[in-house]
Amino acid sequence: MGMEKQHSMEDENSEYLYHPDILKKLDFGKSPAKFNPCISAAHPGEDWMVVRPLQRADYDKGFLQLLSQLTSTGSISRKQFDERFTQMKSAGGYYVTVIEDKRISKIIGAATLTIEQKFIHNCSVRGRLEDVVVNDTYRGKQLGKLIVVTVSLLAQELGCYKMSLDCKDKLIKFYESLGYKLEPGNSNAMNMR
Amino acid sequence: MGMEKQHSMEDENSEYLYHPDILKKLDFGKSPAKFNPCISAAHPGEDWMVVRPLQRADYDKGFLQLLSQLTSTGSISRKQFDERFTQMKSAGGYYVTVIEDKRISKIIGAATLTIEQKFIHNCSVRGRLEDVVVNDTYRGKQLGKLIVVTVSLLAQELGCYKMSLDCKDKLIKFYESLGYKLEPGNSNAMNMR
Repeated sequence: MGMEKQHSMEDENSEYLYHPDILKKLDFGKSPAKFNPCISAAHPGEDWMVVRPLQRADYDKGFLQLLSQLTSTGSISRKQFDERFTQMKSAGGYYVTVIEDKRISKIIGAATLTIEQKFIHNCSVRGRLEDVVVNDTYRGKQLGKLIVVTVSLLAQELGCYKMSLDCKDKLIKFYESLGYKLEPGNSNAMNMR
Repeated sequence: MGMEKQHSMEDENSEYLYHPDILKKLDFGKSPAKFNPCISAAHPGEDWMVVRPLQRADYDKGFLQLLSQLTSTGSISRKQFDERFTQMKSAGGYYVTVIEDKRISKIIGAATLTIEQKFIHNCSVRGRLEDVVVNDTYRGKQLGKLIVVTVSLLAQELGCYKMSLDCKDKLIKFYESLGYKLEPGNSNAMNMR
Protein backbone atom coordinates (compact mmCIF):
# COMPACT_ATOMS: atom_id res chain seq x y z
CA MET A 1 0.00 0.00 0.00
CA GLY A 2 2.74 2.41 1.02
CA MET A 3 4.69 1.63 -2.12
CA GLU A 4 1.61 2.04 -4.29
CA LYS A 5 0.76 5.37 -2.79
CA GLN A 6 4.27 6.64 -3.31
CA HIS A 7 4.18 5.44 -6.88
CA SER A 8 0.96 7.25 -7.66
CA MET A 9 2.28 10.46 -6.11
CA GLU A 10 5.33 10.19 -8.34
CA ASP A 11 3.07 9.77 -11.34
CA GLU A 12 1.14 12.85 -10.36
CA ASN A 13 4.27 14.92 -9.88
CA SER A 14 5.66 13.89 -13.23
CA GLU A 15 2.38 14.82 -14.94
CA TYR A 16 3.10 17.04 -17.95
CA LEU A 17 1.08 20.10 -18.97
CA TYR A 18 1.14 18.80 -22.56
CA HIS A 19 2.50 15.72 -24.31
CA PRO A 20 6.31 15.81 -24.34
CA ASP A 21 6.74 13.84 -27.58
CA ILE A 22 5.78 16.84 -29.74
CA LEU A 23 9.02 18.58 -28.72
CA LYS A 24 11.07 15.71 -30.13
CA LYS A 25 9.55 16.26 -33.58
CA LEU A 26 10.52 19.92 -33.96
CA ASP A 27 12.83 20.55 -36.90
CA PHE A 28 15.36 23.18 -35.80
CA GLY A 29 16.60 23.42 -39.40
CA LYS A 30 13.37 25.28 -40.21
CA SER A 31 14.24 28.18 -37.89
CA PRO A 32 16.24 31.17 -39.20
CA ALA A 33 18.06 31.22 -35.83
CA LYS A 34 21.78 30.48 -35.99
CA PHE A 35 23.02 28.16 -33.27
CA ASN A 36 26.72 27.69 -32.62
CA PRO A 37 27.23 24.92 -31.70
CA CYS A 38 24.08 23.35 -33.20
CA ILE A 39 21.54 22.46 -30.52
CA SER A 40 17.82 21.64 -30.45
CA ALA A 41 15.05 20.79 -27.98
CA ALA A 42 15.87 17.09 -28.41
CA HIS A 43 19.63 17.72 -28.07
CA PRO A 44 20.16 20.84 -25.97
CA GLY A 45 23.94 20.55 -25.96
CA GLU A 46 24.62 19.10 -22.50
CA ASP A 47 23.56 15.70 -21.26
CA TRP A 48 22.42 17.23 -17.95
CA MET A 49 20.00 19.53 -19.69
CA VAL A 50 16.45 18.71 -20.83
CA VAL A 51 13.80 20.76 -22.65
CA ARG A 52 10.30 19.60 -21.75
CA PRO A 53 6.73 20.67 -20.87
CA LEU A 54 6.08 22.04 -17.39
CA GLN A 55 5.40 19.35 -14.78
CA ARG A 56 3.53 19.54 -11.48
CA ALA A 57 6.79 18.69 -9.72
CA ASP A 58 8.30 21.91 -11.04
CA TYR A 59 6.77 23.70 -8.05
CA ASP A 60 9.66 22.09 -6.14
CA LYS A 61 12.23 22.73 -8.86
CA GLY A 62 12.33 26.50 -8.68
CA PHE A 63 9.99 27.27 -11.58
CA LEU A 64 8.26 30.11 -9.72
CA GLN A 65 11.58 31.45 -8.38
CA LEU A 66 12.80 31.63 -11.98
CA LEU A 67 9.62 33.45 -13.08
CA SER A 68 10.14 35.95 -10.27
CA GLN A 69 13.34 37.08 -12.06
CA LEU A 70 10.99 38.29 -14.80
CA THR A 71 8.28 40.01 -12.80
CA SER A 72 6.41 39.79 -9.51
CA THR A 73 4.91 36.38 -8.90
CA GLY A 74 3.67 36.94 -5.35
CA SER A 75 3.65 34.09 -2.89
CA ILE A 76 2.02 31.15 -4.69
CA SER A 77 1.10 28.14 -2.56
CA ARG A 78 1.36 24.60 -3.86
CA LYS A 79 -2.44 24.46 -3.93
CA GLN A 80 -2.65 27.60 -6.08
CA PHE A 81 0.03 26.27 -8.42
CA ASP A 82 -1.76 22.93 -8.73
CA GLU A 83 -5.09 24.61 -9.43
CA ARG A 84 -3.63 26.86 -12.12
CA PHE A 85 -1.82 23.87 -13.68
CA THR A 86 -5.11 21.95 -13.75
CA GLN A 87 -7.04 24.92 -15.18
CA MET A 88 -4.47 25.44 -17.95
CA LYS A 89 -4.47 21.77 -18.81
CA SER A 90 -8.24 21.48 -18.94
CA ALA A 91 -8.67 24.70 -20.96
CA GLY A 92 -6.00 23.57 -23.44
CA GLY A 93 -3.84 25.93 -25.47
CA TYR A 94 -1.19 26.47 -22.75
CA TYR A 95 2.29 25.26 -23.66
CA VAL A 96 4.52 26.26 -20.75
CA THR A 97 7.94 24.87 -21.67
CA VAL A 98 11.00 24.64 -19.45
CA ILE A 99 14.69 23.77 -19.44
CA GLU A 100 15.87 21.73 -16.44
CA ASP A 101 19.38 21.30 -15.09
CA LYS A 102 19.01 17.65 -14.07
CA ARG A 103 22.19 17.68 -11.98
CA ILE A 104 20.51 19.94 -9.44
CA SER A 105 16.82 19.42 -10.37
CA LYS A 106 16.32 23.11 -11.10
CA ILE A 107 14.39 24.91 -13.83
CA ILE A 108 16.85 27.24 -15.56
CA GLY A 109 14.76 28.50 -18.47
CA ALA A 110 11.10 28.88 -19.39
CA ALA A 111 8.82 30.25 -22.09
CA THR A 112 5.12 29.94 -22.72
CA LEU A 113 3.26 29.50 -25.98
CA THR A 114 -0.44 30.22 -25.75
CA ILE A 115 -2.78 29.26 -28.55
CA GLU A 116 -5.76 31.47 -29.28
CA GLN A 117 -8.70 30.07 -31.24
CA LYS A 118 -10.06 32.38 -33.95
CA PHE A 119 -12.93 32.55 -36.40
CA ILE A 120 -10.83 34.49 -38.93
CA HIS A 121 -8.61 32.72 -41.49
CA ASN A 122 -10.95 29.72 -41.65
CA CYS A 123 -11.26 29.18 -37.89
CA SER A 124 -7.49 29.31 -37.51
CA VAL A 125 -5.30 29.53 -34.42
CA ARG A 126 -2.77 32.17 -33.41
CA GLY A 127 0.21 31.71 -31.15
CA ARG A 128 1.69 34.07 -28.57
CA LEU A 129 5.06 33.99 -26.90
CA GLU A 130 4.88 34.90 -23.21
CA ASP A 131 6.97 34.94 -20.05
CA VAL A 132 10.41 34.14 -21.44
CA VAL A 133 13.05 33.86 -18.75
CA VAL A 134 16.47 32.27 -18.46
CA ASN A 135 18.70 31.96 -15.41
CA ASP A 136 21.57 34.29 -16.27
CA THR A 137 24.20 32.23 -14.51
CA TYR A 138 23.96 29.91 -17.57
CA ARG A 139 25.21 32.50 -20.07
CA GLY A 140 26.85 31.22 -23.25
CA LYS A 141 24.64 28.13 -23.45
CA GLN A 142 22.23 29.79 -25.97
CA LEU A 143 19.35 28.98 -23.62
CA GLY A 144 17.31 32.09 -24.50
CA LYS A 145 17.51 31.25 -28.18
CA LEU A 146 16.85 27.57 -27.47
CA ILE A 147 13.66 28.10 -25.45
CA VAL A 148 12.22 30.76 -27.80
CA VAL A 149 12.92 28.75 -30.95
CA THR A 150 11.43 25.67 -29.28
CA VAL A 151 8.05 27.31 -28.62
CA SER A 152 8.12 29.15 -31.97
CA LEU A 153 8.55 25.86 -33.86
CA LEU A 154 5.89 24.35 -31.60
CA ALA A 155 3.46 27.10 -32.70
CA GLN A 156 4.14 26.18 -36.35
CA GLU A 157 3.72 22.49 -35.58
CA LEU A 158 0.33 23.26 -34.00
CA GLY A 159 -0.83 25.12 -37.10
CA CYS A 160 -0.64 28.76 -35.98
CA TYR A 161 -0.98 31.15 -38.94
CA LYS A 162 0.94 33.74 -36.90
CA MET A 163 3.10 33.82 -33.77
CA SER A 164 3.21 37.11 -31.87
CA LEU A 165 5.12 38.70 -29.02
CA ASP A 166 5.44 42.05 -27.29
CA CYS A 167 8.91 43.20 -26.30
CA LYS A 168 11.16 45.96 -25.07
CA ASP A 169 13.24 47.98 -27.53
CA LYS A 170 16.48 46.31 -26.45
CA LEU A 171 15.13 42.85 -27.40
CA ILE A 172 14.09 43.71 -30.97
CA LYS A 173 17.41 42.59 -32.51
CA PHE A 174 17.35 39.30 -30.62
CA TYR A 175 13.84 38.45 -31.82
CA GLU A 176 14.64 39.58 -35.37
CA SER A 177 17.50 37.09 -35.43
CA LEU A 178 14.93 34.38 -34.65
CA GLY A 179 12.56 35.37 -37.48
CA TYR A 180 10.21 37.85 -35.79
CA LYS A 181 9.42 41.12 -37.58
CA LEU A 182 8.16 44.58 -36.73
CA GLU A 183 5.49 45.22 -39.37
CA PRO A 184 5.74 48.82 -40.67
CA GLY A 185 2.80 50.90 -39.47
CA ASN A 186 1.39 47.99 -37.52
CA SER A 187 3.64 47.13 -34.61
CA ASN A 188 2.21 48.99 -31.61
CA ALA A 189 1.57 47.14 -28.36
CA MET A 190 -0.71 49.13 -26.05
CA ASN A 191 -1.82 48.32 -22.51
CA MET A 192 -4.35 49.44 -19.95
CA ARG A 193 -3.50 48.57 -16.35
CA MET B 1 -43.25 16.76 -31.02
CA GLY B 2 -42.76 19.18 -33.91
CA MET B 3 -43.28 22.14 -31.60
CA GLU B 4 -40.90 20.74 -29.04
CA LYS B 5 -38.22 20.17 -31.60
CA GLN B 6 -38.57 23.69 -32.93
CA HIS B 7 -38.36 25.03 -29.40
CA SER B 8 -35.17 23.17 -28.63
CA MET B 9 -33.59 24.39 -31.86
CA GLU B 10 -34.46 27.93 -30.89
CA ASP B 11 -32.82 27.36 -27.52
CA GLU B 12 -29.71 26.08 -29.19
CA ASN B 13 -29.55 29.00 -31.61
CA SER B 14 -29.95 31.52 -28.82
CA GLU B 15 -27.16 29.85 -26.84
CA TYR B 16 -24.67 32.47 -25.67
CA LEU B 17 -20.88 32.09 -25.69
CA TYR B 18 -20.85 33.53 -22.14
CA HIS B 19 -23.47 34.72 -19.66
CA PRO B 20 -25.06 37.95 -20.91
CA ASP B 21 -25.86 39.37 -17.46
CA ILE B 22 -22.25 40.38 -16.84
CA LEU B 23 -22.55 43.05 -19.56
CA LYS B 24 -25.42 44.71 -17.68
CA LYS B 25 -23.20 45.25 -14.65
CA LEU B 26 -20.43 47.19 -16.41
CA ASP B 27 -19.99 50.72 -15.06
CA PHE B 28 -19.26 52.96 -18.04
CA GLY B 29 -18.49 55.81 -15.63
CA LYS B 30 -15.22 53.99 -14.83
CA SER B 31 -13.93 54.35 -18.41
CA PRO B 32 -11.88 57.41 -19.43
CA ALA B 33 -13.74 57.33 -22.77
CA LYS B 34 -15.97 60.33 -23.49
CA PHE B 35 -19.34 59.43 -24.97
CA ASN B 36 -21.58 62.10 -26.46
CA PRO B 37 -24.40 61.34 -26.04
CA CYS B 38 -23.85 59.04 -23.06
CA ILE B 39 -24.31 55.39 -23.98
CA SER B 40 -23.38 52.03 -22.46
CA ALA B 41 -23.64 48.30 -23.16
CA ALA B 42 -26.96 48.24 -21.28
CA HIS B 43 -28.21 51.38 -23.08
CA PRO B 44 -26.51 51.61 -26.47
CA GLY B 45 -28.45 54.68 -27.55
CA GLU B 46 -31.08 53.21 -29.89
CA ASP B 47 -33.85 50.84 -28.90
CA TRP B 48 -33.12 48.69 -31.97
CA MET B 49 -29.56 48.11 -30.88
CA VAL B 50 -28.30 45.47 -28.43
CA VAL B 51 -24.82 44.67 -27.08
CA ARG B 52 -24.51 41.01 -26.13
CA PRO B 53 -22.31 37.88 -26.22
CA LEU B 54 -21.98 36.01 -29.50
CA GLN B 55 -24.77 33.47 -30.11
CA ARG B 56 -24.83 30.37 -32.28
CA ALA B 57 -27.57 32.02 -34.35
CA ASP B 58 -25.12 34.76 -35.34
CA TYR B 59 -23.91 32.51 -38.12
CA ASP B 60 -27.15 33.58 -39.85
CA LYS B 61 -26.89 37.20 -38.77
CA GLY B 62 -23.85 38.18 -40.77
CA PHE B 63 -21.22 37.82 -38.02
CA LEU B 64 -18.69 36.22 -40.35
CA GLN B 65 -19.46 38.69 -43.16
CA LEU B 66 -18.72 41.51 -40.70
CA LEU B 67 -15.42 39.85 -39.67
CA SER B 68 -14.47 39.58 -43.34
CA GLN B 69 -14.38 43.41 -43.46
CA LEU B 70 -11.43 43.08 -41.06
CA THR B 71 -9.42 40.30 -42.67
CA SER B 72 -9.82 37.11 -44.63
CA THR B 73 -12.22 34.66 -42.98
CA GLY B 74 -12.33 32.07 -45.75
CA SER B 75 -15.50 30.11 -46.36
CA ILE B 76 -16.64 28.85 -42.95
CA SER B 77 -19.43 26.25 -42.93
CA ARG B 78 -22.11 26.18 -40.24
CA LYS B 79 -20.49 23.02 -38.90
CA GLN B 80 -17.08 24.70 -38.61
CA PHE B 81 -18.64 27.71 -36.92
CA ASP B 82 -20.54 25.50 -34.48
CA GLU B 83 -17.42 23.49 -33.65
CA ARG B 84 -15.33 26.60 -33.01
CA PHE B 85 -18.14 28.09 -30.88
CA THR B 86 -18.26 24.87 -28.83
CA GLN B 87 -14.45 24.73 -28.49
CA MET B 88 -14.28 28.35 -27.32
CA LYS B 89 -17.07 27.81 -24.82
CA SER B 90 -15.58 24.64 -23.38
CA ALA B 91 -12.06 26.11 -23.14
CA GLY B 92 -13.41 29.24 -21.43
CA GLY B 93 -11.75 32.65 -21.63
CA TYR B 94 -13.32 33.68 -24.96
CA TYR B 95 -15.58 36.72 -24.75
CA VAL B 96 -16.69 37.43 -28.31
CA THR B 97 -19.07 40.37 -27.99
CA VAL B 98 -21.36 41.80 -30.67
CA ILE B 99 -23.74 44.65 -31.44
CA GLU B 100 -26.91 43.63 -33.28
CA ASP B 101 -29.27 45.81 -35.28
CA LYS B 102 -32.48 44.06 -34.24
CA ARG B 103 -34.54 45.72 -36.99
CA ILE B 104 -32.74 43.67 -39.60
CA SER B 105 -31.22 40.92 -37.40
CA LYS B 106 -27.67 41.79 -38.44
CA ILE B 107 -24.44 41.97 -36.47
CA ILE B 108 -23.04 45.48 -36.97
CA GLY B 109 -20.12 45.47 -34.53
CA ALA B 110 -17.87 42.95 -32.79
CA ALA B 111 -14.84 42.72 -30.53
CA THR B 112 -13.24 39.84 -28.68
CA LEU B 113 -11.75 39.75 -25.21
CA THR B 114 -9.56 36.73 -24.56
CA ILE B 115 -8.43 35.88 -21.06
CA GLU B 116 -5.02 34.31 -20.59
CA GLN B 117 -4.25 32.45 -17.38
CA LYS B 118 -0.85 33.20 -15.85
CA PHE B 119 1.38 32.05 -13.02
CA ILE B 120 2.88 35.53 -12.58
CA HIS B 121 1.22 38.15 -10.35
CA ASN B 122 -0.19 35.49 -8.02
CA CYS B 123 -1.72 33.27 -10.70
CA SER B 124 -3.41 36.27 -12.29
CA VAL B 125 -5.21 36.69 -15.61
CA ARG B 126 -4.44 39.00 -18.51
CA GLY B 127 -6.90 40.27 -21.10
CA ARG B 128 -6.39 40.88 -24.80
CA LEU B 129 -8.49 42.88 -27.22
CA GLU B 130 -8.84 41.18 -30.60
CA ASP B 131 -10.74 41.40 -33.87
CA VAL B 132 -12.50 44.74 -33.44
CA VAL B 133 -14.78 45.58 -36.36
CA VAL B 134 -17.74 47.88 -36.91
CA ASN B 135 -19.96 48.19 -39.98
CA ASP B 136 -19.00 51.60 -41.31
CA THR B 137 -22.47 52.41 -42.59
CA TYR B 138 -23.33 53.09 -38.91
CA ARG B 139 -20.91 56.00 -38.53
CA GLY B 140 -21.69 58.58 -35.84
CA LYS B 141 -23.23 56.03 -33.47
CA GLN B 142 -19.96 55.65 -31.45
CA LEU B 143 -20.10 51.91 -32.05
CA GLY B 144 -16.31 51.45 -32.19
CA LYS B 145 -15.93 53.17 -28.85
CA LEU B 146 -18.94 51.31 -27.43
CA ILE B 147 -17.72 47.82 -28.30
CA VAL B 148 -14.11 48.44 -27.22
CA VAL B 149 -15.10 50.03 -23.89
CA THR B 150 -17.53 47.17 -23.29
CA VAL B 151 -14.87 44.46 -23.54
CA SER B 152 -12.28 46.62 -21.73
CA LEU B 153 -14.61 47.02 -18.72
CA LEU B 154 -15.42 43.33 -18.99
CA ALA B 155 -11.69 42.55 -18.65
CA GLN B 156 -11.59 44.64 -15.45
CA GLU B 157 -14.74 42.95 -14.14
CA LEU B 158 -13.10 39.55 -14.72
CA GLY B 159 -10.03 40.58 -12.73
CA CYS B 160 -7.41 41.13 -15.46
CA TYR B 161 -4.32 42.90 -14.10
CA LYS B 162 -3.66 44.20 -17.62
CA MET B 163 -5.56 44.51 -20.90
CA SER B 164 -3.47 44.54 -24.08
CA LEU B 165 -3.91 45.18 -27.77
CA ASP B 166 -1.81 45.47 -30.93
CA CYS B 167 -2.74 48.20 -33.38
CA LYS B 168 -1.81 50.19 -36.47
CA ASP B 169 -0.25 53.64 -36.10
CA LYS B 170 -3.45 55.37 -37.20
CA LEU B 171 -5.43 53.83 -34.33
CA ILE B 172 -3.10 54.90 -31.49
CA LYS B 173 -5.02 58.12 -30.76
CA PHE B 174 -8.35 56.30 -30.70
CA TYR B 175 -7.12 53.73 -28.18
CA GLU B 176 -5.37 56.40 -26.10
CA SER B 177 -8.72 58.17 -25.75
CA LEU B 178 -10.09 54.94 -24.25
CA GLY B 179 -7.29 54.61 -21.67
CA TYR B 180 -4.72 52.47 -23.49
CA LYS B 181 -1.07 53.54 -23.39
CA LEU B 182 2.12 52.97 -25.32
CA GLU B 183 4.69 52.19 -22.64
CA PRO B 184 8.02 53.94 -23.40
CA GLY B 185 10.71 51.46 -24.44
CA ASN B 186 8.26 48.58 -24.18
CA SER B 187 5.60 48.82 -26.85
CA ASN B 188 6.82 46.66 -29.72
CA ALA B 189 4.51 44.08 -31.27
CA MET B 190 6.46 41.57 -33.39
CA ASN B 191 5.14 38.71 -35.51
CA MET B 192 6.38 35.65 -37.33
CA ARG B 193 4.12 34.39 -40.13
